[in-house]
Amino acid sequence: MAILTAAFELTRDEGYRNLTIEGIAARAGVGKQTVYRWWPTKADVLLEALATKAQLRVSVADRGAYRDELDEFLRDSFTLLAIPGVTPALRSLMAESQFDPQFALRFRDGFLDKRRAALTEIVARARARGDAPEQMSDDLIADLVFGTIWCRILATDRALDETDLAVLRDLVDPAHIPADRRL
Amino acid sequence: MAILTAAFELTRDEGYRNLTIEGIAARAGVGKQTVYRWWPTKADVLLEALATKAQLRVSVADRGAYRDELDEFLRDSFTLLAIPGVTPALRSLMAESQFDPQFALRFRDGFLDKRRAALTEIVARARARGDAPEQMSDDLIADLVFGTIWCRILATDRALDETDLAVLRDLVDPAHIPADRRL
Repeated sequence: MAILTAAFELTRDEGYRNLTIEGIAARAGVGKQTVYRWWPTKADVLLEALATKAQLRVSVADRGAYRDELDEFLRDSFTLLAIPGVTPALRSLMAESQFDPQFALRFRDGFLDKRRAALTEIVARARARGDAPEQMSDDLIADLVFGTIWCRILATDRALDETDLAVLRDLVDPAHIPADRRL
Repeated sequence: MAILTAAFELTRDEGYRNLTIEGIAARAGVGKQTVYRWWPTKADVLLEALATKAQLRVSVADRGAYRDELDEFLRDSFTLLAIPGVTPALRSLMAESQFDPQFALRFRDGFLDKRRAALTEIVARARARGDAPEQMSDDLIADLVFGTIWCRILATDRALDETDLAVLRDLVDPAHIPADRRL
């Protein structure tokens, strides 16, 4: 959708601080009332752009095994975060949500909880299949995955790499670590 | 120190957005040039107030066992985060550091890395003693502990409780989980 694309590209090119509803409307070729009709603030447009991107790019498809789906989920997520503009936009939204409690609720609902739900879909399928980590709750698995990702995004400039992927995957799938790497 | 106390209490009572160097100076009974001499921005004063609080309140004392020291470190950290004003102040500083890359470096250096170093001191002593988790790196342990804490602070309103403490402690001390709770 042109409005979402405009919001993402403007943030990537000009920075979140310079993003305005007027700028989004102009770039998308619509009137600014059209934008305001659907989104209360610029942060909300960007939030929907990122939620859409994540939904399109991070697979939760059935691959027959928890470990393989976990691997794909993490790999897709890391790849998404490496697309120019994505990580800075997420940092801006997380920051915005510290200052605006109403936006924080929408960010949680429209982005954070959706990402958790995507991962939980993989875990639920694994529980039904029988290869999920039995003693880890859905919440713990999501806390570990997203806690690690967010902490890295917010507090460092290091990109998430193959080592991080292996560490995270082993953490939330301890039953299938090759014997020589077990703790 | 009066200036640090003033910065923390003003943030707690009036909110970070209303915090000013002038306000800090007035409450501390000093001239504002005195504050500017030592700290470039209001965020830096608050950062030092929180780093000092953390250093005073989170024990890294030798208790003879990694598990006990970990338990104390987490308990002290959670208690600190529950003090009125502390969690909102940390959220504000993390948000500020998303918008101000120069402050982000000072926040990392003056707060985040110090907290990691405190935990790593416990881990190093455990490695020397022989009860550390051998196959977990210092970085992984710190990522898990602080990733979980920051994700909770930034993305939810749930306080960290005894269950979280047990989960975190078991994660970074997998060798000493009682047999009936092992994964």
